[in-house]
Amino acid sequence: MAASEFTLIYRYFSALGRGEAVDLSVGDDCAILRLLPGERLATSVDTVVEGVHFPEGSFPEDIGFRAVSVAVSDLAAMGARPLGMTIALTLPEADEFWLNAFSQGVTQAVSAYDLPLVGGDTTRGALTITVQVLGALPLDQALLRSGASAGDAVYVSGTLGDAAGALAFLSGQWQPSVDHAEFLLQRFNRPTARLALGRQLLGRASAAIDISDGLLADAGHIAAASGVRINIDPDALPLSAAILTQEDSGQRLRWALGGGDDYELCFCLPMAEHAPAGCTLIGTVEEGEGVFTGLELDFSSGYQHF
Amino acid sequence: MAASEFTLIYRYFSALGRGEAVDLSVGDDCAILRLLPGERLATSVDTVVEGVHFPEGSFPEDIGFRAVSVAVSDLAAMGARPLGMTIALTLPEADEFWLNAFSQGVTQAVSAYDLPLVGGDTTRGALTITVQVLGALPLDQALLRSGASAGDAVYVSGTLGDAAGALAFLSGQWQPSVDHAEFLLQRFNRPTARLALGRQLLGRASAAIDISDGLLADAGHIAAASGVRINIDPDALPLSAAILTQEDSGQRLRWALGGGDDYELCFCLPMAEHAPAGCTLIGTVEEGEGVFTGLELDFSSGYQHF
Repeated sequence: MAASEFTLIYRYFSALGRGEAVDLSVGDDCAILRLLPGERLATSVDTVVEGVHFPEGSFPEDIGFRAVSVAVSDLAAMGARPLGMTIALTLPEADEFWLNAFSQGVTQAVSAYDLPLVGGDTTRGALTITVQVLGALPLDQALLRSGASAGDAVYVSGTLGDAAGALAFLSGQWQPSVDHAEFLLQRFNRPTARLALGRQLLGRASAAIDISDGLLADAGHIAAASGVRINIDPDALPLSAAILTQEDSGQRLRWALGGGDDYELCFCLPMAEHAPAGCTLIGTVEEGEGVFTGLELDFSSGYQHF
Repeated sequence: MAASEFTLIYRYFSALGRGEAVDLSVGDDCAILRLLPGERLATSVDTVVEGVHFPEGSFPEDIGFRAVSVAVSDLAAMGARPLGMTIALTLPEADEFWLNAFSQGVTQAVSAYDLPLVGGDTTRGALTITVQVLGALPLDQALLRSGASAGDAVYVSGTLGDAAGALAFLSGQWQPSVDHAEFLLQRFNRPTARLALGRQLLGRASAAIDISDGLLADAGHIAAASGVRINIDPDALPLSAAILTQEDSGQRLRWALGGGDDYELCFCLPMAEHAPAGCTLIGTVEEGEGVFTGLELDFSSGYQHF
């Protein structure tokens, strides 16, 4: 990129790099972060591509906030304390309006998650955003996918299927009321990574994952990693008021079980543990393998990653 | 991506995640890495885009090796000990031949740099590769750009302008001999990040940077960050036998001073320090600002980032 573009980006982002853990931020060959004694590093990377992970023409502010949230959600699912992140931004041209709005979305996420932006790279090409998150975990604890065992209860946070409902609305397949449409778009464009819940579950939950591919797929990852069977009660799935206005119950279930992008947590608790506030009991863990709902599932979404 | 594509990538990469520092590799929401007591984290991210950072039609094996080297070079420039990396790969389709060759290049880099691949993301879109590197530094040491002071000597490792010569050959602007062309292509496609040199300089060099934008630009970053003037002697620049076959001395200088992508280190040493093997004294640090060669510079490459 030309100097002016670098300058632009540097101007937008250089103020976001301050944080307790940050020894050195944007501006040298590497950023330097400090963990506390007794901690280790948790890291994850997520890419979002225009036209694949968000519709073309999305508001750049939403794109920025959402790209960060998607990545932070993986820290939440591990129970990690956020330290910092880097953003690799590939964009077709340095449009000052676009960069300004995008950086506002990123700034809101930096603030919402207390996660300084410590580095990045900007390149020219098709719009692609890769966010790398860095977090801290105690040396002896982490929320893995592999710890569930028979007798555990299965929970989810929030409500399910909202992002799928938003996409159905955006594609013209469904017309909810204006209020509900607004709520659903907010859920898709501004997902909240459940960082506080994840940290609360550390040392209590036997397994956890964030729901990015859809509940069936993601519960399937826990079942596979833990070597257990997960039974989900479809009648217990928490649905928002917006989704409940969809009269086709089969469609509601397809969204809640198969729709991704909600970024809620799905986790398993030993029976002795109490459910955290805002979470819903949706199933149980048994010996065996796979995820079962008792339904004849006539849709494939979520299955593709099994 | 569909299941088969994920399976492919998982097959190629899952064996690369083992390492001393790795508690948990690919397969959960985050990877987990362990630093030693008394260490802190150094991290950097670099994106390469087809048609921008490497020519379309490059061998996927070279693309993989080079993408990793470009990122690792930033760890080298900080003097960091490599811990692990993640790769976010966006590609238009899951071509088994391409993925196989790309993964071979990545595997060679994992082995060359002793840098396990601990996580990643794969998405569909225009070919874009983002590599995030994670390294360890002592709590009280790092090779920054900002420590140079008047009286220091300026060095570079290896030879300069080889990557620029390779690009001139690839674009048909220059026809070196077959042997020299092969050497230059190797230098462009298979750059060696100078990790060992960086670690050797830790605690000795007053400033360091890797040469990715071109010597003038990168020395300029040191000059700006350190608040000093850097004088470079153009007659002292180390040139390979291949570049020396270019008879136009102005062209040689343009490549050596303005060409990027060599991934050698440029660093400043207090006069009391001896030069490491394989490095060349090219200049001095004075009070002032900017980078000077005594030449009337008639080219702009390298200047764009000032």
